[in-house]
Amino acid sequence: MTLTLADARIIISAAEAKVSEVGQPMNIAVVDAGGNLISHVRMDGAWLGGIDISINKAFTARAFNIQTKDLGDNSQPNQQYYGIQASNNGRIVIFAGGIPLTRNGEVIGAIGVSGGSGEQDQAVAQAGAKASLT
Amino acid sequence: MTLTLADARIIISAAEAKVSEVGQPMNIAVVDAGGNLISHVRMDGAWLGGIDISINKAFTARAFNIQTKDLGDNSQPNQQYYGIQASNNGRIVIFAGGIPLTRNGEVIGAIGVSGGSGEQDQAVAQAGAKASLT
Amino acid sequence: MTLTLADARIIISAAEAKVSEVGQPMNIAVVDAGGNLISHVRMDGAWLGGIDISINKAFTARAFNIQTKDLGDNSQPNQQYYGIQASNNGRIVIFAGGIPLTRNGEVIGAIGVSGGSGEQDQAVAQAGAKASLT
Amino acid sequence: MTLTLADARIIISAAEAKVSEVGQPMNIAVVDAGGNLISHVRMDGAWLGGIDISINKAFTARAFNIQTKDLGDNSQPNQQYYGIQASNNGRIVIFAGGIPLTRNGEVIGAIGVSGGSGEQDQAVAQAGAKASLT
Repeated sequence: MTLTLADARIIISAAEAKVSEVGQPMNIAVVDAGGNLISHVRMDGAWLGGIDISINKAFTARAFNIQTKDLGDNSQPNQQYYGIQASNNGRIVIFAGGIPLTRNGEVIGAIGVSGGSGEQDQAVAQAGAKASLT
Repeated sequence: MTLTLADARIIISAAEAKVSEVGQPMNIAVVDAGGNLISHVRMDGAWLGGIDISINKAFTARAFNIQTKDLGDNSQPNQQYYGIQASNNGRIVIFAGGIPLTRNGEVIGAIGVSGGSGEQDQAVAQAGAKASLT
Repeated sequence: MTLTLADARIIISAAEAKVSEVGQPMNIAVVDAGGNLISHVRMDGAWLGGIDISINKAFTARAFNIQTKDLGDNSQPNQQYYGIQASNNGRIVIFAGGIPLTRNGEVIGAIGVSGGSGEQDQAVAQAGAKASLT
Repeated sequence: MTLTLADARIIISAAEAKVSEVGQPMNIAVVDAGGNLISHVRMDGAWLGGIDISINKAFTARAFNIQTKDLGDNSQPNQQYYGIQASNNGRIVIFAGGIPLTRNGEVIGAIGVSGGSGEQDQAVAQAGAKASLT
């Protein structure tokens, strides 16, 4: 069981709808159960540096079945995963904006968002994640 | 002058419409004038290996303002760019499926497609490129 | 709207002029609106390690439309972007010396400087950035 | 004995002067005796993909004290260096446009040019190399 492109588009569309509220254009990416990119969009004016980060937040969230902000809490100095961002050829992101997507308790993909503050990215990712449940 | 996300979606949509004709699901990517990704979609069932290739075909077509199949002709053994695929940190693709997109004679981005034979990829990329002109 | 090579030379020249004051030879780089290098100079005696850093400070400043020192403040342990330097294939620099360049409120490129202390790099980058406004 | 930034600027300036004749804007790079970049310029409209290639043509020419086109002849299928472009982390370029620069029979740096056909790149690199002798 994995996400389809149609699912990814619904998720991205819901995330984009949230952007008008947070007021910062975003990069939004969705990966499947294999951690592989299904779709990415960079809204006009969104950070160039967020292309890589949005895709890899989604990868990270699926790779460890955890929200990237929670992985981040565990990856601070003296915490149990400190240094993890150097693994996986630089694909691990340890700050807010990546959320695993589940169906019937199983992780079937993830969303990653990059373009603003940690709070903004997280809010947009949550809007996308919420749409994946319907 | 560069492509917008709205432009990219029109281009991708036209490319997707062509896929039903060629009969092979595709990865489709569009980059802007700076060679940076605007949007990528992987159709259900399309190659995982085509994620990177579609994005980098689009990058290559913009990086050298040339169709990737034409760059490929020039990059065969004993031709003038032989070995070019080792440059740019492995981002150069030298087979069919990447096409620069122009407006008023200026390159404003590119499309890259990966998922089938060279002919299939090229046909889908051309359908996308054609849509960018309207 | 992006920087031209002529713009980049004016910016680099102004940065070089500042070096005699700070007393440390520098690497100076300017990128365009797409984050792509327009020009780099390494002054005689400047750090070899600063070639990559100056180019990537400029990239970083454009990639996130932020001064690298401010990104650095946000990327310390327990801050919102902690770990960001592992992203973008190692191209993100999170200490002083990279400044986005704007025209009419739009980011059109960036300057990156590397060769001395954070304060020295920042002073030279500022001198270059100031010249971009005229 | 190595090239200075002043030398590099004379070399680049001579190369740029040649561009008006060959009719294709270029990326031009000069490295020192250590193979490390002294200066790079991308002329307005020159290929984005040529940034990496010009810098690495110069690196290659110094790394093996040979013109890149001659290294290319030796790197075709069934020749003695076939496959060499996969070495040195992708920094080896095996087509025309990179020339070592010598003084009193010693290699003191190199020039690399990228932006047009092999012949065009070579002509511009030669113009730069010639200026390094005076």
